[in-house]
Amino acid sequence: MTPRYVRIHPRDNVAIVVNEGGLKAGTAFPDGLVLAEPVREAHKVALEPIPKGQPIRRYGEVIGLAGRDINAGAWVREEFVELPAPPALDQVALATAAPPAGASIGGLEFDGYPNPDGAAGTRNILAITTTVQCVAPTVEFAVRRIRDEILPHYPGVDGVMALAHAYGCGVAIDAPDAEIPIRTLRNLSLNPNISSEPLVVSLGCEKLPPSRLFPEGSPLPVLSGEPWVVRLQDEEYRGFGDMVAAIMRLAEKRIERLSRRQRVPCPASLLNVGVQCGGSDAFSGVTANPVVGHAADLLVRAGATVMFSEVTEVRDAVHLLGPRAATVEVGRALLREMAWFDEYLRRGSADRSANPTPGNKRGGLSNIVEKALGSVAKSGTSALTHVAGPGERVSAKGLVFAATPASDFICGTLQTAAGMNVHVFTTGEGTPYGLGAVPVIKISSRTALARRWPDLIDLDAGRVASGESTLEQMGWELVRLILDTASGRNRACAERWKLDNPLALFNPAPVT
Amino acid sequence: MTPRYVRIHPRDNVAIVVNEGGLKAGTAFPDGLVLAEPVREAHKVALEPIPKGQPIRRYGEVIGLAGRDINAGAWVREEFVELPAPPALDQVALATAAPPAGASIGGLEFDGYPNPDGAAGTRNILAITTTVQCVAPTVEFAVRRIRDEILPHYPGVDGVMALAHAYGCGVAIDAPDAEIPIRTLRNLSLNPNISSEPLVVSLGCEKLPPSRLFPEGSPLPVLSGEPWVVRLQDEEYRGFGDMVAAIMRLAEKRIERLSRRQRVPCPASLLNVGVQCGGSDAFSGVTANPVVGHAADLLVRAGATVMFSEVTEVRDAVHLLGPRAATVEVGRALLREMAWFDEYLRRGSADRSANPTPGNKRGGLSNIVEKALGSVAKSGTSALTHVAGPGERVSAKGLVFAATPASDFICGTLQTAAGMNVHVFTTGEGTPYGLGAVPVIKISSRTALARRWPDLIDLDAGRVASGESTLEQMGWELVRLILDTASGRNRACAERWKLDNPLALFNPAPVT
Repeated sequence: MTPRYVRIHPRDNVAIVVNEGGLKAGTAFPDGLVLAEPVREAHKVALEPIPKGQPIRRYGEVIGLAGRDINAGAWVREEFVELPAPPALDQVALATAAPPAGASIGGLEFDGYPNPDGAAGTRNILAITTTVQCVAPTVEFAVRRIRDEILPHYPGVDGVMALAHAYGCGVAIDAPDAEIPIRTLRNLSLNPNISSEPLVVSLGCEKLPPSRLFPEGSPLPVLSGEPWVVRLQDEEYRGFGDMVAAIMRLAEKRIERLSRRQRVPCPASLLNVGVQCGGSDAFSGVTANPVVGHAADLLVRAGATVMFSEVTEVRDAVHLLGPRAATVEVGRALLREMAWFDEYLRRGSADRSANPTPGNKRGGLSNIVEKALGSVAKSGTSALTHVAGPGERVSAKGLVFAATPASDFICGTLQTAAGMNVHVFTTGEGTPYGLGAVPVIKISSRTALARRWPDLIDLDAGRVASGESTLEQMGWELVRLILDTASGRNRACAERWKLDNPLALFNPAPVT
Repeated sequence: MTPRYVRIHPRDNVAIVVNEGGLKAGTAFPDGLVLAEPVREAHKVALEPIPKGQPIRRYGEVIGLAGRDINAGAWVREEFVELPAPPALDQVALATAAPPAGASIGGLEFDGYPNPDGAAGTRNILAITTTVQCVAPTVEFAVRRIRDEILPHYPGVDGVMALAHAYGCGVAIDAPDAEIPIRTLRNLSLNPNISSEPLVVSLGCEKLPPSRLFPEGSPLPVLSGEPWVVRLQDEEYRGFGDMVAAIMRLAEKRIERLSRRQRVPCPASLLNVGVQCGGSDAFSGVTANPVVGHAADLLVRAGATVMFSEVTEVRDAVHLLGPRAATVEVGRALLREMAWFDEYLRRGSADRSANPTPGNKRGGLSNIVEKALGSVAKSGTSALTHVAGPGERVSAKGLVFAATPASDFICGTLQTAAGMNVHVFTTGEGTPYGLGAVPVIKISSRTALARRWPDLIDLDAGRVASGESTLEQMGWELVRLILDTASGRNRACAERWKLDNPLALFNPAPVT
């Protein structure tokens, strides 16, 4: 492969070396630029001299200020890039450049399981809700037995899982921020892949009993007259064996009904695709994330919901997103989530520089600004139609910002609570990520990773860097993969291995 | 059973009704007191008139102020008990009444597995450390296969487990409080039941790589020349199957060595007993916790370590503990932990009243003061010799306060990190609690619970309330049960069912 770099925007004064293994000092690019020193794959090379104090530009945006004079052809390493101040929230333009709706795309369908509440499942799963961590091992014990003894008789059911979590009575339930883990737990149970047959295991003495978790008016489709809660402290259970038997009895009834469900054609508007990146590198913003962004635009035009998240990876690009808000109200909601998180980090004496990770940096990402600019590429170019707080349920269509921390499992948990029925996860460094309730399509930013992990990566976006495919081609390819996966015709790698990252609640409230 | 109440201290003006099912209005006690209204089992009756604004006394201490005039024989319900201010930390007397050491008890031994670092295991377990949540499902996958395919060939090994947790790169690793989850993870791996054969699975790009988790000088007994880390992103692993195979290969080597270990007699000084209560009721402070306290005194006299914890359940009794500190320094460390937690709760707009739970209240506990006074009974009467912060390793002997939240799983996780090799857990309402790394002995505060859950409760302290046993008898019974369990001659109920509450890290730092 000839020496090659990727410059994203004509105004950029740095570009990314894309040759596998990196390039040596003295290497000349076709345009005449000569490397002054070795530059690793995915790392930045200066395209022109950048004097000390001057902006370093990538994605057409300032990712930092030069900490010293940088020569053309030099490796723009992390230490040379000074972190600029984040965009001031009171100066972000709102709804000033909301893109018009793209031409509608008709005829995109998937075979799903429509639910009474209007959403549709892409999987047919029995999930057992736990109100408190105390009951987790009891439910896990029952789940193992259900998998071994009951599930094999009902091949139409995709699985059984415990919605186990670390929420306990320790959480200061009346603290202002405690509503976040509570609504997350509630909305997890309402995820379309698992909500059709609710079953709740409660201890009995917990602060968050089923009646508080599912208050009057909650859309849980509880069947009239049929018990839907096993309360372990109830007098009727004479020990552990009895508790497990009770859970299994109620589970089998539900599994039997689940097994009678059939997939039916559903419009793309019943898709709720949550997008996330994890273990990102400098390619993520060039290949995998833009592919996802292109697919997001197509899905939005087909009427679907696409959710992007990860507040700290949006914060430094909020000046680009504010103008794209469909209305000023949506824009204000976006700023509100950013301000809440700024304050949350401040309270804990941290700031956005806690992200990125050493892996991100090894992968060429100098700081959170560069990471954020690459991360928001997942949102494509549509107007932002809705903003949801952490753990809130999303029913809006179009492009939605569902606020979450960037931590993979917390984001995945909160997007599951928001109602996603397909998850798209891009990765540069590689991570074997999976969720129990939702299929996870994993996209590599580089071909080397896809080759190394053929049984974990579902789609290789590195083909964009090598010139094998275009963003447009791969965007369509991803849409088709999403439809196939939603329909159960394709099982994502993580599903085949049954990889199921434990739920991780976002609890900004203290524990006692 | 004749009408019976339990008054703890001669100064008390309330007592607890102990008759199962409670007592009716008009019931006369042998001393002539007549109930003015029905009082439920474990709830309080006024022994004399208590005028509005006057102290309500239990355990010889003020548990609250009367919110209205209370007649003799009345049910002292939660609404009548006004929460008093917590003891002022700057007025707590320190080391003014440290009890002298009790007569040494010789000859108490258990059969354990001595480790090179001087501690001893009570179980012989392979635990696989995970540096980041990303690798959890991969390790769980490997653990399932190890259990099925390898473990059956090595009967001398008690089990294999993943030290899985929710710590991810989202944790703001340089925030002041982030050291708590980090040292917890480190010290979990050093627990004596699992530390003899370390094995770590790392992703590769995480913020907390093995080198930071186990820095130079960390007492992990890494075998020279033998690999002890599987790093999933390493080039050598060609996909998921390869990663799992590598973990299994290293695991089998360790299991083979573990299987050659033999139990040998160990002095009681190698016991580290962590005590905890969960799902408490008003009996807990009368039966189960004092039984534990009595056993704690005996174990301390035998040279063992006994750790009690749960800051919010100690805070309102700190004026009783401060004087018992062995030195002023130990007393100051106790106050420091209390002050840290006060501030932590304040930052989250919560306070100690977030504890207790509805179940505690149903069980007769009016507020956190009453709960705390019952909770600290677990600490017995010995001098307090050491105080450890959350997640710190404890090597001191004697009575130790290991600061933790009161949340069961967080406390259990932190006590495991502190190095406990037997866990004693008292419960009133009942909870099927268990830990993967440490046997959990569960003690009921009432006989009714022990009868209802015969396969979950290991010891019934309700026999103290019924007069069947004395605290002294049951204290010794518990010591013998601890020794039998430590020796593997007894398997606790939770072990027999393999109940393993997921680890729950205490992370007061924000996530990004």
